[in-house]
Amino acid sequence: METRTNTERHRQRQQKIKERVDSRVAAATERKGIVLVFTGNGKGKSTAAFGTVTRAIGHGKTVGVAQFIKGQWDNGEYNTLHQHNVEFHIMGTGFTWETQNREEDIQAAHAVWQESKRMLADARYDLVVLDELTYMLAYHYLDIQEVIASIVNRPSHQSVVVTGRGCHSQLLDIADTVSEIRPVKHAFDSGIQAQSGIDW
Amino acid sequence: METRTNTERHRQRQQKIKERVDSRVAAATERKGIVLVFTGNGKGKSTAAFGTVTRAIGHGKTVGVAQFIKGQWDNGEYNTLHQHNVEFHIMGTGFTWETQNREEDIQAAHAVWQESKRMLADARYDLVVLDELTYMLAYHYLDIQEVIASIVNRPSHQSVVVTGRGCHSQLLDIADTVSEIRPVKHAFDSGIQAQSGIDW
Repeated sequence: METRTNTERHRQRQQKIKERVDSRVAAATERKGIVLVFTGNGKGKSTAAFGTVTRAIGHGKTVGVAQFIKGQWDNGEYNTLHQHNVEFHIMGTGFTWETQNREEDIQAAHAVWQESKRMLADARYDLVVLDELTYMLAYHYLDIQEVIASIVNRPSHQSVVVTGRGCHSQLLDIADTVSEIRPVKHAFDSGIQAQSGIDW
Repeated sequence: METRTNTERHRQRQQKIKERVDSRVAAATERKGIVLVFTGNGKGKSTAAFGTVTRAIGHGKTVGVAQFIKGQWDNGEYNTLHQHNVEFHIMGTGFTWETQNREEDIQAAHAVWQESKRMLADARYDLVVLDELTYMLAYHYLDIQEVIASIVNRPSHQSVVVTGRGCHSQLLDIADTVSEIRPVKHAFDSGIQAQSGIDW
């Protein structure tokens, strides 16, 4: 049973929340592309990047994706999003711990980075995703200064999403939004296999 | 310049990582649907849920989505995903702080919950997303015991994704994977407007 007092208290609380949100919305007046980083050790970084792509194409945006590292297996996000003309560049060397060939990895990283740089310089792209870029910087496969410059000098309406653990501090500095995804628990640790449609 | 020593050290390190991953993969033998929670105060919870949907449909899975709260505006994930026969049930009352009518909110929450319960009992769904469900529990709009029972008793191959801040501890208890998304910084706080293709 709802009492009148409860309902009124709820209405007043919601009214206060609404006023606070409205004033923040009024204060946020700048329209420009943003740099969004999903980092941390938890599950959901690349997943959130591909959720952002799904949103963007739902608004008719033009999207380019560079995937550093993953790529040798059946890829659910690719299967769906390439149907919507999302452009993919995938290193395709598999996980680096599977290839164990540093020179080949570096070459593959540079090839995908060239495509990334081109997209970051092209105003036709509304959103560029640099999935798992952070590892390329941590391994010194790519030059941090060149990456930062390309992102900072991109077309002003263009947004960029970067994913991966251990994001470089200079990338965090130029980011507008940073979410750290913390693993509270993970199915894998309780013996459940990784599976299609959830993990890739 | 890469030296041989560097390359060899890298190879050995990657080999060790590969062995560790391989042994964890070998240990994880159970195949079943999982309960995945994206919680915390950072940006990316619903986004990760819709990334999961994008992956799942890329593998031909059948997906149902219940969105509690949001729904009055142009919704990028809906625009994209309904083209792939993803079933959406949206409360459509807008943010509760906009409606300020507790009774209407409760009715709308129950209507969407009825659809959720039906999907959670139906083996044809491989994945059910309960987007922003946590608020419905925090506000006591829905009964936690009924929600827990419906999730626990679902078909064993079915996965469930729950999103929202402040996830109820009983939901965390039954979850297989929990990611907490922490806001390190947010564009909104530096005066940048929320925008289509990123924020909705």
